[in-house]
Parts: sequence; structure tokens; C-alpha cells
Amino acid sequence: MSETTKQPLRLALAGLGTVGAGVIRLIETNAALIERRCGRPLRIVAVSARDRGKDRGVDLTPYAWEDDMTALSARDDVDVVVELVGGSDGPALTLARKAIADGKAFVTANKAMIAHHGLGLARVAESAGVPMRFEAAVAGGIPVIKGLREGAAANEIERVYGILNGTCNYILSTMEDTGRDFADVLSEAQAMGFAEADPTFDIDGIDAAHKLSILASIAFGTQLDFSSVDAVGIRRVLAADIAQAESLGYVIRLIGMARVEGSEDGKKRLFQRVHPYLVPKNHPLAHVDGATNAVVAEGNFSGRLLFQGAGAGDGPTASAVVADIIDIARHWESENEIDPAFSIPVGELDATVPAQTGDRVGKAYLRFMVADRPGVLAELAAAMRDGGVSIESLIQKGEGSDGAVMVAMVTHEGEEGCVVKALDLLAGSDSLTEPPLVMHILKQ
Amino acid sequence: MSETTKQPLRLALAGLGTVGAGVIRLIETNAALIERRCGRPLRIVAVSARDRGKDRGVDLTPYAWEDDMTALSARDDVDVVVELVGGSDGPALTLARKAIADGKAFVTANKAMIAHHGLGLARVAESAGVPMRFEAAVAGGIPVIKGLREGAAANEIERVYGILNGTCNYILSTMEDTGRDFADVLSEAQAMGFAEADPTFDIDGIDAAHKLSILASIAFGTQLDFSSVDAVGIRRVLAADIAQAESLGYVIRLIGMARVEGSEDGKKRLFQRVHPYLVPKNHPLAHVDGATNAVVAEGNFSGRLLFQGAGAGDGPTASAVVADIIDIARHWESENEIDPAFSIPVGELDATVPAQTGDRVGKAYLRFMVADRPGVLAELAAAMRDGGVSIESLIQKGEGSDGAVMVAMVTHEGEEGCVVKALDLLAGSDSLTEPPLVMHILKQ
Ligand SMILES: NC(=O)c1ccc[n+]([C@@H]2O[C@H](COP(=O)([O-])OP(=O)(O)OC[C@H]3O[C@@H](n4cnc5c(N)ncnc54)[C@H](OP(=O)(O)O)[C@@H]3O)[C@@H](O)[C@H]2O)c1
Ligand SMILES: NC(=O)c1ccc[n+]([C@@H]2O[C@H](COP(=O)([O-])OP(=O)(O)OC[C@H]3O[C@@H](n4cnc5c(N)ncnc54)[C@H](OP(=O)(O)O)[C@@H]3O)[C@@H](O)[C@H]2O)c1
Repeated sequence: MSETTKQPLRLALAGLGTVGAGVIRLIETNAALIERRCGRPLRIVAVSARDRGKDRGVDLTPYAWEDDMTALSARDDVDVVVELVGGSDGPALTLARKAIADGKAFVTANKAMIAHHGLGLARVAESAGVPMRFEAAVAGGIPVIKGLREGAAANEIERVYGILNGTCNYILSTMEDTGRDFADVLSEAQAMGFAEADPTFDIDGIDAAHKLSILASIAFGTQLDFSSVDAVGIRRVLAADIAQAESLGYVIRLIGMARVEGSEDGKKRLFQRVHPYLVPKNHPLAHVDGATNAVVAEGNFSGRLLFQGAGAGDGPTASAVVADIIDIARHWESENEIDPAFSIPVGELDATVPAQTGDRVGKAYLRFMVADRPGVLAELAAAMRDGGVSIESLIQKGEGSDGAVMVAMVTHEGEEGCVVKALDLLAGSDSLTEPPLVMHILKQ
Repeated sequence: MSETTKQPLRLALAGLGTVGAGVIRLIETNAALIERRCGRPLRIVAVSARDRGKDRGVDLTPYAWEDDMTALSARDDVDVVVELVGGSDGPALTLARKAIADGKAFVTANKAMIAHHGLGLARVAESAGVPMRFEAAVAGGIPVIKGLREGAAANEIERVYGILNGTCNYILSTMEDTGRDFADVLSEAQAMGFAEADPTFDIDGIDAAHKLSILASIAFGTQLDFSSVDAVGIRRVLAADIAQAESLGYVIRLIGMARVEGSEDGKKRLFQRVHPYLVPKNHPLAHVDGATNAVVAEGNFSGRLLFQGAGAGDGPTASAVVADIIDIARHWESENEIDPAFSIPVGELDATVPAQTGDRVGKAYLRFMVADRPGVLAELAAAMRDGGVSIESLIQKGEGSDGAVMVAMVTHEGEEGCVVKALDLLAGSDSLTEPPLVMHILKQ
């Protein structure tokens, strides 16, 4: 396109739901300023979704309609295919493959698909010489993929971590503010549209794991490995845990945490975990409330960089989708090389093995629900001692409604493997009325 | 350079102080990963500073030395000139002009020079077809220029504001933590190297004004206008003001704030202010402590984006300088068009007139030091009434050491012009032992 730089960049949109309609509204509302910034206009040419008749709050008459999404990519008058359908496989993936094969640039907000198929898609996009971008797939409106790929590009990233799921953060921070219980706040969030009818992906940490695996690949230059993310959600966090944490100087947040570690055998070890963490109140993530997302990248020269903003919603997500499109409008010319989707070519990303977590060192919060009878505390304490866990503080709280007693403790810094060993010693004990809950404490 | 993409990008560094030595350390330490991310190595070819003999903690023997900085840009073996000398005019400006004229890419961390001469330099860089970049000039290691130019590129930016001077933030947050007074904390900061021997640029808000004017131009697509920034520093903020603010639910931060406003006559009005503000404790900027910087951009689709990190220091600043260099290594080819320094070509940036501040609406904190005698409070209250200022809360605090009494008030939301009028009515009154201090309250 080098001779036609002033020509419009022509877009086809697949999916006209929350994000798709947002993208149309954005491109219409901000058309003049986008043209100014790109040196050329963006023009939506064709759109597709399931139901042609649905009112989407935007006028679709200026755009061609395709019943079959894949027909979008076959069109000669389209430069970029934008996938806003969702789902890791199925029609989204079919469209992605076809668009790239047809020589179209490909933009998506689909974290599930990128987490599962991102490397394969990036590889074919590279050989086809077409750009593929997915800024909106991680942390909604926050330009964190660009921040890592380019803003922090001079750094070795030591850790990347953050609050990657707005639904969980809304629930945890509402529990914190109101003292209410998980189930109660979840139903309210569903009623208010902050949580899906089927909240499993959010609540169980899978959505955050999708995003974390993408971030880790970009930050470390390693092959994306969603399958090895250790993901635990927030279902088991009690209002009482939050109160306990608060009294110790922490808040509870669902954190996705990744780092990469060398090892003697030369293989890189990739550590990826999505867990509820205790976050010290003086850490910037402790102040991230409601549906907000935030990502921290710690670079060996930059120090700690924090990117914060809206992690979802039509406007913010559209902002990230269109940022990708603007990048393509500015830089994609038929002759030039395109920045690879994962910042470096797929073939050059490092293979990794999953890191062992047992020898990881840190502090942890352990919470037990135990029968209210003599000797139980001694049993817990003995298991800790025999596992090699040293206790920094311990709180025993009066009886719950079911007669159980809550015992919460914070360990001294020590190997995580010791905690696992101590809990193994307690496994099957009839002193415990439910399995213990372990939450790690975020290191400053 | 399109045929030689795998060739090293060859750099000349002018200035080998804090930042210059940091850039050398970074490029040496992270050489392998940078080459991986760029697809080509960065190679420092030549360096220059005043004193060839000085020990800078880095080995300079691999690099050619030039006594005269401008000789760097004349070298055939140099692609990029990196200016880390400082000063708005003088040798830095001479070098910038020469480098661009010699067809070199130009990278700088020099906010003073960009604030004063950035548009002129960008104009010549555009006609020469060479890239010019200055990420490190604003907020040190935080990639906020890239965040605005690219990450938020799809948005109309409604306000851009933030904590842009680490020295002031360190002083204010230390005053807050310790209750100590300004002069005391400043001397300590100087002793610890957090403040310059001559702290005027920092303390009086000039450094923040340089950065704000750059941010505003990029965010709004308007001509950079440093001269119209209304800058007031933190010298007059007392420990007692901080205590007062705290009791009302605020912290005090030096904030640079910019917005652009339309008007009936079609002229855009640019509002740029660097003032100590009262920041509500639930605003993300209220948690930015120490020498940290943070920038908020409010986009019409993205909502509020926050970028936070280290605003100065050798490592963070080098991280931003080298991010610019990596961008050039990735994208600068002799045939292609270069993104303009201010995101859109200088000739297309909007001219503005400075905004009137009087009709701006907000709440303010007013602090008076008054003589301890009957009738003074009535005099203040009458002036407020006659100016049209409505008072939300008022605190009178016991006698200071000099016999003066402190009266602090927070106004209801109202026109700033009314506050000016009320204070005009008090001008010259011998009830006031010193001029009143006005601080605006940051709107959520
Ligand atoms: N919502 C957010 O805040 C957010 C944030 C970040 C990323 N994302 C990602 O963005 C993508 C879209 O999310 P969304 O919230 O906009 O979803 P949505 O509101 O459910 O919209 C999905 C759209 O895809 C269309 N569609 C679904 N299945 C289809 C099929 N088989 N053939 C043709 N069209 C089909 C639907 O058509 P009909 O309208 O006709 O039913 C609908 O227009 C997902 O990958 C999601 O993970 C969303
Ligand atoms: N320091 C930070 O954290 C920071 C953060 C953001 C931006 N910046 C900007 O980065 C730039 C450099 O700052 P810095 O802190 O590195 O300054 P610095 O430590 O004072 O270093 C300045 C360097 O420039 C050289 N120099 C000064 N005048 C010269 C002249 N007339 N001819 C040749 N060389 C000359 C000095 O040489 P000698 O060493 O031989 O005296 C020194 O190496 C400034 O524009 C500053 O605003 C700094």
C-alpha cells in the first residue's frame, strides 16, 4: 500500500455485540481525529453477526452485511478483519485462519482464542506477511501489550503481574467494603451486569489465566503456555478472610503472576499463577478497586511500571481494538516488515518448562475451619512444625454458625513446599471441617 | 536502510552523566535481548562529554571519543544521535539542529529543550525525513508519550494530568508522613541527592510545566505552548496545610493539569496549570508517594488510564531513551514514512489561545494567616460573600509562633473568578500577615 498511504484503511467487523457495537460507535464518533492521527481515514466496509435484525444501537445501513462471517475476509474491498465474536475455537478461529490466509490484517479481542491458538495464528500471519494484533485481549482498555512490547522493550522483565479480571476485583472489593459474603455479592454483580450468567471463566481464574499467559509470552519472549497456568479462583474466599487480612495490613486480590527463571540445565522455567493473594496495603495494587484492572511490569532498568484502567466494557475495549487498527493504518505498507504479534517471531520465542512451585520462597496465609474441641490447635501446630513451617501470627476466631472455629495464620517467609507438606500431614484429619485455604502474600 | 535491516543501528551519545552512563549500562547489560526484540543490534559508536578523564563507572574504551559534541553528528558511521546533555538552549540545541540537518535520527531526554524548541525541531526533522523522539523527557521511565500517541490514539483526550515532578512529590509525601516543614525536608532531599543543589526548576513547578506542555501537545494535537502554563510550585505549602487537608479527606500533590476547550469563536482554548492540588484520598493519584510519577489520561472511550512508575533516575530514564532507540531500530527504513514526533505533523497541530481560568468551576482550599484580633473572621467572611464564594467548611487553628492564626476553608463548587475577586477584596488588608494560599481541589 505504499503508493496509497492516503487511502482509507478498510475494515470488516465480525461480531456486533458489546465490543463490536462499541467499535462502530468509536470509529464514527472519533472519525476526524483518527484520520488526523493516522494520516488516513478508517472505513468500515462490511459487518457480520448472527442476527441481522437485532437492534444494536448503531446504524448498520452504511455497511455491507454478510450472513457468513468468513465471507468478510473474501472481500476485495477489505484490508483488516476484526474478530469480536469470542470463543477459543469455532467460528472465531475459522475466521482468523481464513482472514490471514486471505492476506488480511487480523485484529481480535479474543483472549481465549489467543491463549489457545495465538502462537499458531501468529506463525501463519508472519509467513503471510500480515499484521495480527490483540491489545484488547488483555486488560481491556489498558494499552499494556504495547506498553510491554514497546514501552518497556529495553528491559529484561523480572515479574509481570496484575489484576486481570474485573469481575473478581469487583466482587472482592465489594466484599471488602460491605463485609458481605461471596455468593451474595456475586448474585448482585450478575443482576447488575458486572458478571456473566455463567461466571465460571471469571470466578475460577480462567479468564485471568488466558490473559496472564499472553502477557508472559510478550514480557519474557517465551512460547505462550496457557496449559501450565496454575489457576485458582475466588470462590472459597470468605468475608472473614478479608477481615482477617485487613487486620494484618493486607487486602485480598485475584492476582495473575508470572516470572521466568533460569536453571542449571539451561532450560527456562516459566512460573504462571492466578491465585487470590494477600496484597500489602502500601502496594499500588491494593488501591485498585471495583472493575478496574492493573498490570505491573518490573524491568531491570525501568523498575516498577504500573498500567491501570478499565479492564472491560464497550468503550474501553473498543479503544484498545481501534488502537491496534490505528497502528496498522500507520505502519502497514506492502513492502515493509511487520512487527510480529508476540514482538519477536514465533520461531524465536524460547521454549520453557513449567517452574516447580515447591521451592518458591514466600509468606502465606493459611485458614482452617476446625471442630471446636480440645487438641485441635495442637494438631495444627504440630503439622506446621513437622512440615517445617514457621508461624508469624495466628488468630483463632469464635465459633461459626455450624460450630466450626476459624484459625488463620500467616507464616514466616519459607518454602512453599513446606506448606504443602504440612497440609498433607493434616489431610484426612477429622478435626478439619473443610479443606484449608492457602493464599500467598504478594512480595513488595 | 531497507536492504540492511539486519545491520546494527549505530548510536552516538552526547552527555555521559546520570542518564548517559545509564544508557551505556543498559545497552551493554541487555544487548542480547534488545537484539532479539529489534531484529538487529544497537551499537554505540562514539560518545562525548565535557571531561574525558572523569570516571563514569562505565568503560568508554570501546567507543570513539569526540571532544566536540557536534562532531558526533558529522560521523558517517552514526545513524542516531542521542542527546543527554540538558539545557533548553546552548550546546544541546546546537547538537539537535546539526544532527537533524545531517540526516541522523535524534533522541533526547531534554524536556526543557523540547518545551522551548520542540515544535521547531520536529518541523525540520519532518522535512529531513528523520525520526525525533523524546519519551524520557516526560515522566522518566514511564512510557507515557507512547501510551498517549499510540495506546490511547483512538480517543479524544478530555483531560491529561499527573504527578510530573518526583522531587516535589518526595517532599510533599515526606511532609505528610513526618509532619515536618518544607524547608527541612528540602534540605534533607538535597543531602540525599533527591533534589538538586539549585532546586528552583523542580520546586517552582517549571520542570513539571515543561513536561505538561509536551503531554498536552501530544494528547490534544495542539501546538506546544510552554509559555502559557500557569505554574506555581510547592514552596508555600505548610505542614499545617497538609494536616488540614488530611482531616478533610485529601492529600496535597503538585499536579500538572491540561485540557482543551472549544469556544464560540471556533478557537481552541488550552488550559495548562501546574499547582499544588488537594487530591481526594480515593483518587489513584492520592496513593502516589515518594519520587514516583504518574500520568492520567481520560479518553472519551477508554475512560481513565493511569501510567505510573519512576519519574527519574539513571535506570528508568535510560529505559525510556532506549525504548525510543528500539522504535527507530524497528521502524526506520529509508523508504518509509516516519511517525511525526508530536504524533501528527507540526503543520497540522491546532493553534490555541490560553484558556481563561476565571470561569472555571471547582472547589478550592483557601488558607489565610491572620492577626489574632476581633473582627478578622468577619472580614474574611464578608470578602467571601462579596466575591460570591460559598464556604463549605472552615477551620480556625490556634496561634502560630508569630502570633498569627491560621484560617483554612474549603469552598463549595463555584467559579474560580469569584475566589479571585474575594481575595482582591482582601488585598492590602492588614489583617493578613501573609498573602493567602489557594489550592484547587482535583475533581474525581
Ligand atoms: N465485553 C467486554 O468487555 C470484553 C472485553 C475484552 C475482550 N472481550 C472479548 O471480545 C469478544 C466479544 O465480546 P463481547 O462482549 O462483545 O461479546 P457479545 O456481546 O456476546 O457479542 C458477540 C457477537 O458475536 C456474534 N456471534 C456469536 N456467535 C456467532 C456466530 N457463530 N456467527 C456469527 N456471529 C456470532 C454475536 O451475534 P448476535 O449479536 O447476532 O448474537 C454478537 O454480535 C470476546 O472474545 C470477548 O472475550 C470482551
Ligand atoms: N537525571 C534524571 O533522572 C533525568 C530524568 C529525565 C530526564 N533527564 C534529562 O536528561 C538530560 C541529562 O540529565 P543528567 O541527569 O544525565 O545530567 P548530568 O548528570 O548533569 O549529565 C550531563 C552530561 O552532559 C555533559 N555536558 C554538560 N554540558 C556540556 C557541554 N557544554 N559540552 C559537552 N558536554 C556537556 C556533562 O559532561 P561532564 O560529565 O564531562 O561534565 C555530563 O556528562 C537532561 O536534559 C535532563 O533534563 C534526566
